[in-house]
Amino acid sequence: MQQGAGKPVLLVALGGNALIEKGQVGTMEEQFENLKRPMAQIAALSQTHRIILTHGNAPQVGNLLLQQECCNAVPHLPLEILVAQTQGQMGYMLESTLDTAIMESGLKSTPGLVSLISYVVVDENDPAFQNPSKPIGPSFSSRKASNLPYPTQKTAKGYRRVVASPKPLTVVEKREIRKLIDMDFLVICCGGGGIPVVREGRRFCGVDAVIDKDLASAKLAEEVGVDIFVIATDVDGAALHYGGNHQKYLRAMTLTEAQRYLKSGHFPPGSMGPKVEAAVEFVRHTGNRAVISSVRAIKDAVEKKAGTEVVPP
Amino acid sequence: MQQGAGKPVLLVALGGNALIEKGQVGTMEEQFENLKRPMAQIAALSQTHRIILTHGNAPQVGNLLLQQECCNAVPHLPLEILVAQTQGQMGYMLESTLDTAIMESGLKSTPGLVSLISYVVVDENDPAFQNPSKPIGPSFSSRKASNLPYPTQKTAKGYRRVVASPKPLTVVEKREIRKLIDMDFLVICCGGGGIPVVREGRRFCGVDAVIDKDLASAKLAEEVGVDIFVIATDVDGAALHYGGNHQKYLRAMTLTEAQRYLKSGHFPPGSMGPKVEAAVEFVRHTGNRAVISSVRAIKDAVEKKAGTEVVPP
Repeated sequence: MQQGAGKPVLLVALGGNALIEKGQVGTMEEQFENLKRPMAQIAALSQTHRIILTHGNAPQVGNLLLQQECCNAVPHLPLEILVAQTQGQMGYMLESTLDTAIMESGLKSTPGLVSLISYVVVDENDPAFQNPSKPIGPSFSSRKASNLPYPTQKTAKGYRRVVASPKPLTVVEKREIRKLIDMDFLVICCGGGGIPVVREGRRFCGVDAVIDKDLASAKLAEEVGVDIFVIATDVDGAALHYGGNHQKYLRAMTLTEAQRYLKSGHFPPGSMGPKVEAAVEFVRHTGNRAVISSVRAIKDAVEKKAGTEVVPP
Repeated sequence: MQQGAGKPVLLVALGGNALIEKGQVGTMEEQFENLKRPMAQIAALSQTHRIILTHGNAPQVGNLLLQQECCNAVPHLPLEILVAQTQGQMGYMLESTLDTAIMESGLKSTPGLVSLISYVVVDENDPAFQNPSKPIGPSFSSRKASNLPYPTQKTAKGYRRVVASPKPLTVVEKREIRKLIDMDFLVICCGGGGIPVVREGRRFCGVDAVIDKDLASAKLAEEVGVDIFVIATDVDGAALHYGGNHQKYLRAMTLTEAQRYLKSGHFPPGSMGPKVEAAVEFVRHTGNRAVISSVRAIKDAVEKKAGTEVVPP
């Protein structure tokens, strides 16, 4: 008998801001403190749901890149290894904070808890590789940038390294993750969108890229058969005219509306855009629920009391 | 029904030298290349055994420490976070190399494959905390060392940071690991001896320490009920008078002999000593087989054709 059978499967994708809030430098103390609130909600939800937890890693992988740039005494590591390092770091931080939350809450049943290394296959012919556009890591002066061994782009913060952000095709560990949630394990995985790899014959090879963590989470949610997909971020949901006089948070939008709003520029790329795209992808493929909500309101979002729901058709 | 039932459970503890061989600087290419041989053996053994794979992290965590020392632009991370980062890095390297080996070998049945973050509880009153003795990371001049915010010790390479190496009490994820091997998952875990934590009431808190990976592996092997414990290193086994004219590799030794040889200094601390201690601990608690062998001869060691076996009484 499958122990978790009957409980709906919930995937929560945590934004990087769950660990580092605006105005913070991101010390370990701050990150552990910030994690307490979302983890208490996840602990409570584990009584009624089988749960998969994914997370971003932008500030953490940026810090590792910056350290590499400073130091020539050790061999520089390719980007996918840095992503793997942040999966270790953040997997531990999430798991131990959640462990504490579960113990402190005195819950009746405590799920098995695992943090998995995950890698995600991308297409080596993905057009994103011809047009690297995702800025990562430290900023440089124009002169320094022109001497770097990789492409850079001028951003508001100066010149920054840009990498490809190809589409996730499949999560390598999807069968394992499905088996684990069927046994009512709570699974932390796909950190930072997963370690990007391409398939070369029978081999997996890492590539210099960063996969969008919300798109990777949507792919995983589809592949393992998730019932509810929550994207937790630092705002209450998706809004029309965000930041303007007519700003209006949406409680729900249909797939058709979501695609229209995306086209008309309501949801900027690199911000709310990929979150809405990820929700749309998931709902379009499964017909199940997707909600974009604040990190503070994950439980309310699951209970239909908060966030922006994307619904068919 | 438990899928893995009937197959004996094997735990292989891989030395750091499985990834970086003598004379190499430790580029990613070298490390991936070196992993192919042990991983091909693990793939073959997965047909007849349920397998847990643990590994060291000394050169990798040393590199991360060195990077931190170079760079003041990002907050310095405590040691347990660096250990967590190496679990991510090496978990990915081992898993993807093993994945490739399994695919290339055309095996009949392919096990589920997961790399887990693992933390290991130590006693905050362990005497090791009063006497930090394990050198890690870069070496410094005497003047630089005296200005560092942590204890250092003079070593053959100059002054180096020393940290406590407390005894492992329990692996936090032991129940999860047991369930996974019962389902015939191949589990990579306890990297670098595990992320060291102490329990404070209901909370787990990381501590600045490095747990010996062979002792942590012995504890895990005991806790999950392993049948065969293989410690894979860069020599063929344990030897009397190692490096001397009368050097003699042992094919087997009893617990009593092992303890006598340890006392009389045949197995130096920081080298063969902890491996023999780990094998002794495991055999003493379980009465099962422990073998110390070369990384090249893991399969032979399991099949009693190579290595040094520690046997009761």
